[in-house]
Amino acid sequence: MATDQLIHDLYAEIVKIPLIDPHSHIDPHRPTARTLDDILGYHYYTELAHSAGMDKALLADAPPRERVRSLLAHMDRFDNTVQYGWFLEIARTFLGFTGERLSAADADALWDAAERVFARPDWESEVMRRSNLEKVFLTNDFDDPLTKFDTSRYVPCLRTDDLVFRLDDPQVRQRLARATGEEGRDQVSLQRAVRRLFEHFTAHGAKACAISLPPDFVPSASGPGVFWMLAEHCREFNLPFDLMIGVNRCVYRNGVTQGQDLFDQRTSLIQYAELFNAFPEVTFCVSVLTSAQNQELASYSWIFPNVVTSGHWWYSNIPAYIEQDARARLQAVPKTKQLGYYSDMYKLEFGLPKYNMYRRVLAKVLADDFVRAGAMTEGGAVELARLLLRDNARRIFRV
Amino acid sequence: MATDQLIHDLYAEIVKIPLIDPHSHIDPHRPTARTLDDILGYHYYTELAHSAGMDKALLADAPPRERVRSLLAHMDRFDNTVQYGWFLEIARTFLGFTGERLSAADADALWDAAERVFARPDWESEVMRRSNLEKVFLTNDFDDPLTKFDTSRYVPCLRTDDLVFRLDDPQVRQRLARATGEEGRDQVSLQRAVRRLFEHFTAHGAKACAISLPPDFVPSASGPGVFWMLAEHCREFNLPFDLMIGVNRCVYRNGVTQGQDLFDQRTSLIQYAELFNAFPEVTFCVSVLTSAQNQELASYSWIFPNVVTSGHWWYSNIPAYIEQDARARLQAVPKTKQLGYYSDMYKLEFGLPKYNMYRRVLAKVLADDFVRAGAMTEGGAVELARLLLRDNARRIFRV
Amino acid sequence: MATDQLIHDLYAEIVKIPLIDPHSHIDPHRPTARTLDDILGYHYYTELAHSAGMDKALLADAPPRERVRSLLAHMDRFDNTVQYGWFLEIARTFLGFTGERLSAADADALWDAAERVFARPDWESEVMRRSNLEKVFLTNDFDDPLTKFDTSRYVPCLRTDDLVFRLDDPQVRQRLARATGEEGRDQVSLQRAVRRLFEHFTAHGAKACAISLPPDFVPSASGPGVFWMLAEHCREFNLPFDLMIGVNRCVYRNGVTQGQDLFDQRTSLIQYAELFNAFPEVTFCVSVLTSAQNQELASYSWIFPNVVTSGHWWYSNIPAYIEQDARARLQAVPKTKQLGYYSDMYKLEFGLPKYNMYRRVLAKVLADDFVRAGAMTEGGAVELARLLLRDNARRIFRV
Repeated sequence: MATDQLIHDLYAEIVKIPLIDPHSHIDPHRPTARTLDDILGYHYYTELAHSAGMDKALLADAPPRERVRSLLAHMDRFDNTVQYGWFLEIARTFLGFTGERLSAADADALWDAAERVFARPDWESEVMRRSNLEKVFLTNDFDDPLTKFDTSRYVPCLRTDDLVFRLDDPQVRQRLARATGEEGRDQVSLQRAVRRLFEHFTAHGAKACAISLPPDFVPSASGPGVFWMLAEHCREFNLPFDLMIGVNRCVYRNGVTQGQDLFDQRTSLIQYAELFNAFPEVTFCVSVLTSAQNQELASYSWIFPNVVTSGHWWYSNIPAYIEQDARARLQAVPKTKQLGYYSDMYKLEFGLPKYNMYRRVLAKVLADDFVRAGAMTEGGAVELARLLLRDNARRIFRV
Repeated sequence: MATDQLIHDLYAEIVKIPLIDPHSHIDPHRPTARTLDDILGYHYYTELAHSAGMDKALLADAPPRERVRSLLAHMDRFDNTVQYGWFLEIARTFLGFTGERLSAADADALWDAAERVFARPDWESEVMRRSNLEKVFLTNDFDDPLTKFDTSRYVPCLRTDDLVFRLDDPQVRQRLARATGEEGRDQVSLQRAVRRLFEHFTAHGAKACAISLPPDFVPSASGPGVFWMLAEHCREFNLPFDLMIGVNRCVYRNGVTQGQDLFDQRTSLIQYAELFNAFPEVTFCVSVLTSAQNQELASYSWIFPNVVTSGHWWYSNIPAYIEQDARARLQAVPKTKQLGYYSDMYKLEFGLPKYNMYRRVLAKVLADDFVRAGAMTEGGAVELARLLLRDNARRIFRV
Repeated sequence: MATDQLIHDLYAEIVKIPLIDPHSHIDPHRPTARTLDDILGYHYYTELAHSAGMDKALLADAPPRERVRSLLAHMDRFDNTVQYGWFLEIARTFLGFTGERLSAADADALWDAAERVFARPDWESEVMRRSNLEKVFLTNDFDDPLTKFDTSRYVPCLRTDDLVFRLDDPQVRQRLARATGEEGRDQVSLQRAVRRLFEHFTAHGAKACAISLPPDFVPSASGPGVFWMLAEHCREFNLPFDLMIGVNRCVYRNGVTQGQDLFDQRTSLIQYAELFNAFPEVTFCVSVLTSAQNQELASYSWIFPNVVTSGHWWYSNIPAYIEQDARARLQAVPKTKQLGYYSDMYKLEFGLPKYNMYRRVLAKVLADDFVRAGAMTEGGAVELARLLLRDNARRIFRV
């Protein structure tokens, strides 16, 4: 940073923008970590440690404090990764860590610091404030009661993977019946069930519907598809539909929890052309998994009024791909149609390092491609960042 | 620019190279804009404005002056894009605009300036001179009479999409019959028709045959394909064949005119292996739509003597992709086999900003990858640029 | 280099790391060039010259000294390429060339210098020393006797393309029968043959099994596949399995020798999911041909403990793709699971310029993404480079 004053200055302004985080997995009843294990239990650490040779038994069966020590002991195998960088930033910013590198020798001090810090009565608000997070979208199961949390801070979002891909599962049927009074065994019952879910969610402040989709998924109006029905209800209930396109579940069958999913690069947004044409009133906030498909996303969003670029997802959420993908979007997609970033986090503490990673890349792209190229003033670049990090989300999701 | 002296110096030399523009949609009888509506009617502006929320009615039915005002009013939604940058450069260079950003408030002044400037008797020559354009290739319908224009300045090129993809259309049949005296209903008649078209075009100075192709197109020697017949005539008549690979037409069905086409990234040049093998005497000037397929293009051009890289097309025609794609080509493809850029323009005024965009990227790549890396002198880098912008086109198209 | 002190300093340290080169085509009985024709006969030069218009007859039938002169005469058509850069570096470093550019006028002087230099009795050791090469892996035919060379310097590797793809060829059958006493006409005989090959190779110091695979290959446990059998023997004999994924053979049918192969970008590592799951004990060192598939590779290696990233192969072995691909791997894949580079060379003289190309890119990425970003000290960055260039290969291949 220090080597480039313009990037430094832009970054300093960008971090002041209060964030609307349009996609996370936060549990609003337990939004922050309680122990260091809640931090290092994040699948990025368990899967990287396992991938680098750590035995699954050490990960699964150990008591939390020992699991953390083992993870720290394995970190020297993946301390090159950005995910390690996120944790280092958490340790430094929130836990007072002052060393250069983390190792098993830091386990006790970090554990104790975490216990102390995370137990503060105002910890949740402090994390929000220090991370400059204003609103955080959730990912709620369809049968979530959505009660007992502040929906102006934690914005509900109807996650629909179970409805589209697991409705054959008796447990899912039962959950649907309990939530809606409908078993959804025929089109009429299914229609009624979905309608009740949308009524329930919008009554409780939901601002989006969301789903993750495998690479070979092709939405279609023909056949008894739940997916198409969801799009119809998004239209009726005025909800944007988050499409997270491209993930194959359980590719590595013996992987750690949440560390089993991968993808097939051979997928195309052309599979969604019929959908985008059929629902001009629905805003589709699209995430893709690969940088190659990002070129499709930038192009489809440049052409379709109802297609919006959304964040930098999972395997594309590293600076090498964020930089290339964000550059293309900023050069080709109307600035009002870009949701710059979302955290995808499970615990609030990750908002800060993840957004900082994005904001550093964004400052660099704005400096190189816009301010230095003479296309924008510094002030103009910061206003553009404000759209990406805040104002577009407010307008698109009506929050 | 100013921040990097070497890039600045290279750019200053590169802009002095007189351009051969090997692909445009210029109407030689009306090559320049007559009103500002001819500029802002370019599909890049109508599609971006529509994508950013502008009603199609405002675009289709409004009187030209009002349409321009509406477009300018919507520009603050896409003033981050390079296409906005092209227009800003036109306004500054040709229309005397001196402000920072364009808005509806500039509509009258720009309209009047355009009316005044575009009406100058020497405007066509002035644009050519100030843009440093020497020759501009056209894209002519097969039944274009090719008369009453200077074919040494505007080089005819036989566009063959209609013949390959729309020969079932009675109107196309009629046009073919009128142009050639043949209806093309059997192989013999079709052969005669195609031969007459090639005779007509080459007699009128045509220097290339061109076509755009969908992602799933696979040329084949078997079956009664017009495409294969065209390649045979390119061989016989000594014409390079421009292949623009990868576009799906009318994906966004309700899009504005020319703002409906997109693509499927899942396409490969392996589909053209049989063609490239069958016609070693024909030079294929290949454009691709995606940066991922650019790696295929660079590799196929590195191996096949008759495959030449051509320009940066459409959704790849933004600096983020031009830079990566040009770098790969410059590092891997013989320098004599690269057509650096073409304008794809409908009005001459766009030559300047589009080529400037390319020349800025080219200066940067030459500075970073060649001059600073010690692989070339500044003079050598400028000579390389001269091949890309001028000399390769002259040799390959024999102009 | 000189323009950036940090990159310069990192590079200076990185070149001191003794190299383990995990993949080459060196003939251990004739590891160095004997004439300049051995250098310029490398397919990169013959295919680029041919692609740029050089007649195959000049390449195939000419006496060596004339062929070299002709190649040099054509070099001004591809002196922009990195491959030209490798040769220029060889000429300067080993042959005393002091000029700016190479041409036919240099043919005699270079030929004579090469004759003199390559004939030195200690030339092989001198090249190894000046290139800082410690061990070089070979690519041995399955019936290679593996005798009369120093297997601690030249590490045998069982190349299995013939077994998997050409077992129907009577010549291959015969070679198999001679090498193993088995014709491999049924599963039992084939099992025995493969076992004997593994016994022979491991007894002679082989440290890997390797194969190159077409884009549509899908390994499967069902059916009488030799490939699956090889993986089983890798498990039993404790050998890593190098998978070089994505090449189509003989795409350009009239190309020069080894200058005929290309690829289809439409391939995915999902095709290997069953394999990776079935053999957790086998380390798969995976090379891919495209930068788009590199994102898959980085992701699969991040998740699967037994998938390791390996080098920058063929059409991806140019700085534009090395930089992007290496950045992604360094940000996302545990550092212990990356084989940074291999030479793929046929003559030892190419180790120096090829590794230097990689080391320059690596120094730049380490400077920009790690040291300047504050994520690593300079010393830490050099230690990371040591893993990529040496220590990971030693651990993974047990050398």
